[in-house]
Amino acid sequence: MGKIRVIQYGVGPIGAGMVRLMLSKPAIQIVGAIDVDPKKVGRDLGTVANAGRELGVKISSDANAVLRAGADVVVHTTLSHLKSVSGQLTDCLNAGLHVVSTCEELSYPFRKHPELSQQLDEVAREHKVVLLGTGVNPGFVLDKLILTLAAACQNVTHASGHRIVNASQRRQPLQAKIGSGMTVEEFHAQVKAGVIKHHGLPESVGMVADGLGLEVAKIEEVIEPVIAKERVKTDYFDVPAGKVVGVRQVAHGFSAAGKVNVDLKLEMYLGAPDSVDTVSITGTPDLTLTVPGGTHGDLATAAITVNCIPALFEMRPGLRTSKDTPMCYFPGIA
Amino acid sequence: MGKIRVIQYGVGPIGAGMVRLMLSKPAIQIVGAIDVDPKKVGRDLGTVANAGRELGVKISSDANAVLRAGADVVVHTTLSHLKSVSGQLTDCLNAGLHVVSTCEELSYPFRKHPELSQQLDEVAREHKVVLLGTGVNPGFVLDKLILTLAAACQNVTHASGHRIVNASQRRQPLQAKIGSGMTVEEFHAQVKAGVIKHHGLPESVGMVADGLGLEVAKIEEVIEPVIAKERVKTDYFDVPAGKVVGVRQVAHGFSAAGKVNVDLKLEMYLGAPDSVDTVSITGTPDLTLTVPGGTHGDLATAAITVNCIPALFEMRPGLRTSKDTPMCYFPGIA
Repeated sequence: MGKIRVIQYGVGPIGAGMVRLMLSKPAIQIVGAIDVDPKKVGRDLGTVANAGRELGVKISSDANAVLRAGADVVVHTTLSHLKSVSGQLTDCLNAGLHVVSTCEELSYPFRKHPELSQQLDEVAREHKVVLLGTGVNPGFVLDKLILTLAAACQNVTHASGHRIVNASQRRQPLQAKIGSGMTVEEFHAQVKAGVIKHHGLPESVGMVADGLGLEVAKIEEVIEPVIAKERVKTDYFDVPAGKVVGVRQVAHGFSAAGKVNVDLKLEMYLGAPDSVDTVSITGTPDLTLTVPGGTHGDLATAAITVNCIPALFEMRPGLRTSKDTPMCYFPGIA
Repeated sequence: MGKIRVIQYGVGPIGAGMVRLMLSKPAIQIVGAIDVDPKKVGRDLGTVANAGRELGVKISSDANAVLRAGADVVVHTTLSHLKSVSGQLTDCLNAGLHVVSTCEELSYPFRKHPELSQQLDEVAREHKVVLLGTGVNPGFVLDKLILTLAAACQNVTHASGHRIVNASQRRQPLQAKIGSGMTVEEFHAQVKAGVIKHHGLPESVGMVADGLGLEVAKIEEVIEPVIAKERVKTDYFDVPAGKVVGVRQVAHGFSAAGKVNVDLKLEMYLGAPDSVDTVSITGTPDLTLTVPGGTHGDLATAAITVNCIPALFEMRPGLRTSKDTPMCYFPGIA
């Protein structure tokens, strides 16, 4: 087998991380790059992605020209909403390419976008390629780990997941993004404006519910501020008691009768306890799994996406998710 | 899709557990049963498997007659050594049936039995069916969980797994099987005779090494007794200090240069600390995952095997392992 020829679609911070990681995999050859940002178009991908060297691949805004020039896989990292990217994804599939995408709504799109999901599935199957939505969250911590653990259960009646991220140790943009230092009013305004929001929790609830056969007729999501009980100081913020140090986002999956069958909670705030991911299943037997220290968000997003590339060639064509993927590390053997 | 028609091949304690579990899955219909034990042949499967009712399925010793009568999947639970079961497996594949088997050496057979693996793979592919070796250990705790966790890593340089089972709370046969109450000499004689031995640790090392691209040129396995430091008492055994309370089995995977790249340890003894499964990866980033309380061996063996049945219809035909399987719970929706 020759090298896997990959096109990077979207060269923002996430896409740049994918590029740097792919350069460590001898089995991958990056053959093209797409971005619409005029500051990036025409420049070398290696330069823009901070890869430390030029790659001889120019970033182009002409998606179809790049997609039709000969490749195997598209790594797609542009936007969070499926409607915004379905045209891009369809172009990739129509070019006969496998796609792995970090679009959060693609991680389990069947409930929110049933018709669009069906259309994308049909285009992928028509071209005998795989369209895979994945990532660390959604796509791994609060869904795939639950499904994997449940493989050891004879019966399952409830599932939950809880991700705590102590944001004190994280980079400045993340600390800002979760509302650090805001008043409660400012926080709620930012939530209302859609600025403070982790995308993908309802998608994770859907994947868990369907994977475990748990009835979920309604999914409710709540985003609330975590308030400093005392002053919290980091390298970037100095938050007095009473102001916001971060976010708590919860999604519940209810049965028609109102029973909570799936509940997922994501907490990211300054001064949180040690980061940890915990998933629990009620069933025969009850089982709990923890990742002490938590799964590193930035590293894992790129890792999971790139590690899924070999599986694209193994899976049944169509629209697939983490649920269908035999996740593993990609050693990068050529 | 109609019901999945399953044949149970082997109706010992493990196979009986599979049968009872499958009866809770509405999507499964048990259509046949094979066993050579004269005490079981001709009797109803439900009676022999303690299912609480008759199933209208007679246990037969005529494997080929049962396999050719019309089915989709064989659940195979007979022996641990691949050479002892390769004829049985070949019969199943030649009948055009998918097979999921708990044969420990089938969980990752490529290193110990390269030619036999290739033959079985060819027969499976010829008939466009999947032959899957799986189980809880080998097949899940000390291999699949490591590979799944590694999906979140950008780079991996070492992997380890450690399963501790506090045997004090387990059933009598398990306490006896691990050498409880023996002298050290008796224990070593039982190891030499192959009686005290967990099968599958080298297979797990192989799966982890190949899945993570870690060089393992040689696998060494050691079985040693755990000695009581003070008197240990359970419902079934009363072991004085100095005698055996259980077993510690370790497998190391060495590179050609002698570096340990994979190490797996299984400890089962009376009076052990709380049961726990822990797997760790050294890489970018380091990651650890724990299952506090451990994965219940008896329940999980049947669970994982039966839960893998839907994946048989999704995977590429051929000889496959847990590594290739998108493990999930089988809700049993018809």
